[in-house]
Amino acid sequence: MKKHNFSAGPCILPEEVFQQASQAILDFDNSGLSILEISHRSTAFVNVMEEARELALELLNLQNKGYKALFLHGGASMQFLMTAYNLLNKKAVYLNTGTWSSKAIKEAKLFGEVIEVASSKDKNFSYIPKDYSVNEDVDYFHCTSNNTIFGTQIKSFPKVSVPMICDMSSDIFSRELDFSQFDVIYAGAQKNMGPAGATLVAIKEEVLGRMERDIPSMMDYKVHIEKESMFNTPPVYAVYVSLLTLRWIKANGGIKAMERKNSEKAGLIYNEIDRNPLFKGFAAVEDRSAMNATFNLTDESKQEIFDKMWKKANVNGLSGHRSVGGYRASMYNALSLESVQVVVDVMQELEKKA
Amino acid sequence: MKKHNFSAGPCILPEEVFQQASQAILDFDNSGLSILEISHRSTAFVNVMEEARELALELLNLQNKGYKALFLHGGASMQFLMTAYNLLNKKAVYLNTGTWSSKAIKEAKLFGEVIEVASSKDKNFSYIPKDYSVNEDVDYFHCTSNNTIFGTQIKSFPKVSVPMICDMSSDIFSRELDFSQFDVIYAGAQKNMGPAGATLVAIKEEVLGRMERDIPSMMDYKVHIEKESMFNTPPVYAVYVSLLTLRWIKANGGIKAMERKNSEKAGLIYNEIDRNPLFKGFAAVEDRSAMNATFNLTDESKQEIFDKMWKKANVNGLSGHRSVGGYRASMYNALSLESVQVVVDVMQELEKKA
Repeated sequence: MKKHNFSAGPCILPEEVFQQASQAILDFDNSGLSILEISHRSTAFVNVMEEARELALELLNLQNKGYKALFLHGGASMQFLMTAYNLLNKKAVYLNTGTWSSKAIKEAKLFGEVIEVASSKDKNFSYIPKDYSVNEDVDYFHCTSNNTIFGTQIKSFPKVSVPMICDMSSDIFSRELDFSQFDVIYAGAQKNMGPAGATLVAIKEEVLGRMERDIPSMMDYKVHIEKESMFNTPPVYAVYVSLLTLRWIKANGGIKAMERKNSEKAGLIYNEIDRNPLFKGFAAVEDRSAMNATFNLTDESKQEIFDKMWKKANVNGLSGHRSVGGYRASMYNALSLESVQVVVDVMQELEKKA
Repeated sequence: MKKHNFSAGPCILPEEVFQQASQAILDFDNSGLSILEISHRSTAFVNVMEEARELALELLNLQNKGYKALFLHGGASMQFLMTAYNLLNKKAVYLNTGTWSSKAIKEAKLFGEVIEVASSKDKNFSYIPKDYSVNEDVDYFHCTSNNTIFGTQIKSFPKVSVPMICDMSSDIFSRELDFSQFDVIYAGAQKNMGPAGATLVAIKEEVLGRMERDIPSMMDYKVHIEKESMFNTPPVYAVYVSLLTLRWIKANGGIKAMERKNSEKAGLIYNEIDRNPLFKGFAAVEDRSAMNATFNLTDESKQEIFDKMWKKANVNGLSGHRSVGGYRASMYNALSLESVQVVVDVMQELEKKA
């Protein structure tokens, strides 16, 4: 029996994507070959890569606006490095909203001066700093749109006069934004887009080519763009499953429809967190993430019984990250409202028992 | 109907691996979850990673010899960079036996002086240079064990007094060697080990830690070793399918048995290339690869008819790389002797028609 999967990532993908992804292992598009054994230079796979790159830009409404999409190896952690390699000449501004921002800052420091313009570390990253401004004399501004671990999300992005880079690993394709306000968007696939092993990068080409640094080929966005995201053998299967997921998003109403459903799910669980005296939310209310709801028990002694109850209800992955404790309900695009209702029911059941 | 897949990589994997890999997408080990949606920090996946790392060392007979195995993102192309990042202090020696060696040399030059000790470029990389020696005052010696594009393979490795790094992407697990003669072995998974998207690195730990350079976390072997190959979200599925393939190798007699079967397949096709007046081999006879047999028609006008014939025989991926032309039969571990016989039969059929 399928579990209600609230895992923070890798995470749930649409059931029909799993079905198609499984079939393609046995026989890809009636080719007599598995998707795992076809050449990445075959027409069949070149078509997969091209469709995935185009569809990503289409869903983000970035077509014909000077952007290129790439599917690269390495996860967002590799992008902490690649963004700095390609764009950090002298100094850059970073907003520190949690673990992933902190890691991005650490890597960027190897390439130039890093100005941490604001940080919510003072309150264990439970809010999004808002009072800061970004000077014009820096190479770029970097931020993390959604903080998986702490359950916060940037609702309004600052207006800056320098290129803006955003790590959207945990909320890309989940809500409507003017994506053209960003010059580089990157996202590890393993939340709303596909399995672990591929990373989407959408780059406004005009921000490239300003560096004097020698960039190794695998680190160089221009090389990957020139080679149409096939400089080396790409992570074929992760790209293919990402394409299946992007097709599913499009067929189900695009980002607009995803956002509507995600708001409904988030509303359902946050209402219960606020209503139920046994629970309290972790993140500042105005900064709550629609993707990852973090919450704690008001009485920690109920942990054992609550854990038993949600596991019995066939729920997976509800334990919080060690930095926050308590619980985290990750509600990516593919998670159903019914799954959230199951958790809410268990929370109410716990209240009745108390 | 399944094709006879001679693709150079990504390439054929064992049929039972495809079956297991397909099933795990629907339900991984009766967990009620897909392998694509489980957390990489779950016990189930941590066990996969640990077994894969151990089994790789076991098959290479490198257990308890100071080596660590890692499954990293990025393919061998990333290792061109990582090996230099971690080990090239001042200068290093590279043997240039083809496209992949040349690429490794190009990336290493960003990190220090590179001495190309020998090259077979003078004859379009159709042989392996043998008369060279490696000075003691360099950081390491780098070579490519098998050249997929040109169909050559190093049969005997030089004795060197410096660390030896070997790119074994296209022949790892295919033949018995004293693997402990190497200090770093790396291999993109997508030939004998699994699907594209993961890279095995086996490192003798004692060669690390000699650099003064700041190494970005994702580039740093020590970081990946310390984090047990989970510094960031690993390419979960590619690692899992690699594990399935390693288990298949072990269950089928290990590298020794693979080598026996590979010799038989190589013998079959090379005999036909040498016997059949319509064909000639590309690589120097003593340097012929058991993995990739490269050959050309003696009369190019027969190309159209030969291409039609092997395609009709349900053969896939026999066309040679553009650098060599003609044909390339890639005969990785999972390819059967029967598939090679199909190609040999077509070659003989062409001869009868002539």
